[in-house]
Amino acid sequence: MIDRLCVIGVGLIGGSIALAARNKGLCGTIVGFDHNIDNLRVAKDLGVIDEYAFNAKDAVVGADFVVIAIPVGSTDALFTELRDTWSMSAVYTDAGSTKVSVVDGIREKFGSVPTNFVPGHPIAGRETSGVQAALADLYDGKRVILTPLSSTDGKAVSRVTEFWSGIGASVALMEMDHHDQVLAATSHLPHVIAYALVDMLGRKDEKNEIFRFAAGGFKDFTRLASSDPRMWLDICMANRLEIHQLIEEFKLELTAVGDMLESHDADNLYRMFQCAKDARQRFLDQFDG
Amino acid sequence: MIDRLCVIGVGLIGGSIALAARNKGLCGTIVGFDHNIDNLRVAKDLGVIDEYAFNAKDAVVGADFVVIAIPVGSTDALFTELRDTWSMSAVYTDAGSTKVSVVDGIREKFGSVPTNFVPGHPIAGRETSGVQAALADLYDGKRVILTPLSSTDGKAVSRVTEFWSGIGASVALMEMDHHDQVLAATSHLPHVIAYALVDMLGRKDEKNEIFRFAAGGFKDFTRLASSDPRMWLDICMANRLEIHQLIEEFKLELTAVGDMLESHDADNLYRMFQCAKDARQRFLDQFDG
Repeated sequence: MIDRLCVIGVGLIGGSIALAARNKGLCGTIVGFDHNIDNLRVAKDLGVIDEYAFNAKDAVVGADFVVIAIPVGSTDALFTELRDTWSMSAVYTDAGSTKVSVVDGIREKFGSVPTNFVPGHPIAGRETSGVQAALADLYDGKRVILTPLSSTDGKAVSRVTEFWSGIGASVALMEMDHHDQVLAATSHLPHVIAYALVDMLGRKDEKNEIFRFAAGGFKDFTRLASSDPRMWLDICMANRLEIHQLIEEFKLELTAVGDMLESHDADNLYRMFQCAKDARQRFLDQFDG
Repeated sequence: MIDRLCVIGVGLIGGSIALAARNKGLCGTIVGFDHNIDNLRVAKDLGVIDEYAFNAKDAVVGADFVVIAIPVGSTDALFTELRDTWSMSAVYTDAGSTKVSVVDGIREKFGSVPTNFVPGHPIAGRETSGVQAALADLYDGKRVILTPLSSTDGKAVSRVTEFWSGIGASVALMEMDHHDQVLAATSHLPHVIAYALVDMLGRKDEKNEIFRFAAGGFKDFTRLASSDPRMWLDICMANRLEIHQLIEEFKLELTAVGDMLESHDADNLYRMFQCAKDARQRFLDQFDG
């Protein structure tokens, strides 16, 4: 049980965490902080948080559990702000989409990574953002990856694990490098591809109105391109090496398809399509979201 | 009003055309042919067709309106079969996903493109296939592109236009080259990208179980990779030059993203993401499916 839960960043992610924690009776008071003061007021009006502070430093005072749910491009500045009042009697975790950059950032600001900071990433989201979009069941049955370091306090890891389990999520532990590789493949690269494709086709549409003849499949395929550009800029920059590597790999894959088309290599093209269909079925069979 | 409608290929597409035509009272008897005899029996049992024939030649006898709804890789063989009994008192149209290859095929078999053949393409589909998946409202509010040649009989074009309008679709006329370019961009390239990405990630999944950590966005993004590999092999081969060209363009787009990541060019990457988001919104604003 948490006496005082502090949520820094009360948007879709942080707001949903607050709603879920309260819903499941995991905490007493919830205090929030957000750079956007209107967002904070809405969060309080909606009952997502009980109180708010006007800066992160004040928000964490007296909290025994702190969740950082802000864009990964903003964590460095937050760590600078929190450094002097960092409490070793609280547990800190975050919800950032990349982990190496967050851990590097806190290490740089603190000299070493505090043992009571447990890097984390809930694998859930929606296209919409802001606290109005927060849902108490956003993490229900979803996966949360924690990437503790060897130096991280085991009790802190346990508390964060219990917190997410209490919310209804399923927790997996992973090395932070591996997290960033896996998410680059299943999330960051697909977003980059969707943005790049729609950007390219958008220019064609301006000349030729091609979107008039696009169908439902195109709508699904391009949904990721409606994600928040600022947030995804942050993520791509934070994990740019892994993403760059995968872009290069994917270009080779596309080159292979182009070669098969050019040489009429129907056998190998069919094999690739069938392998992809089978692989997606494997994904669907284990997908629980 | 059509006395005798012949549907060649009674799968999802042809079956839905038959159901819709009957539903809207556009025709008398519906006769079907399909290479898969079980499919034909099911179609008759379900009341999708009234009669069937054991070959295409027999199926078209006495029909005043013929819809060809078979994979584009099979149209050449069909045209060979139909050539000797081609009736100039009927109207023929097709529902193939590519148009240049179909028109080239019939020109090659017939010496010239029959003036009563109106190439067409309804922009609608489902992941599932077969006559069991057919829906009477599959084309409701959807777009159908017709690509008549300058030599095509205007009355035939009018009859096919009325047919699709009667079904509830909205008809657009287009040059066949332009059709193939537009569909390569909005449909064929996205399918190729989805197949190529899932194929690549499927291999990573075998080593690292990355799909365990993929979320709902990945599910939507990769839906196209669950499409029928045989059908998409046909389409890709039939429109391989356009698709190849777009693959090359898309590789350049990905290279640009890679360069922006490498050089920390946040401004241009943000601009690309925002342009893509805006372009998709433009698509959504006019999407009627």
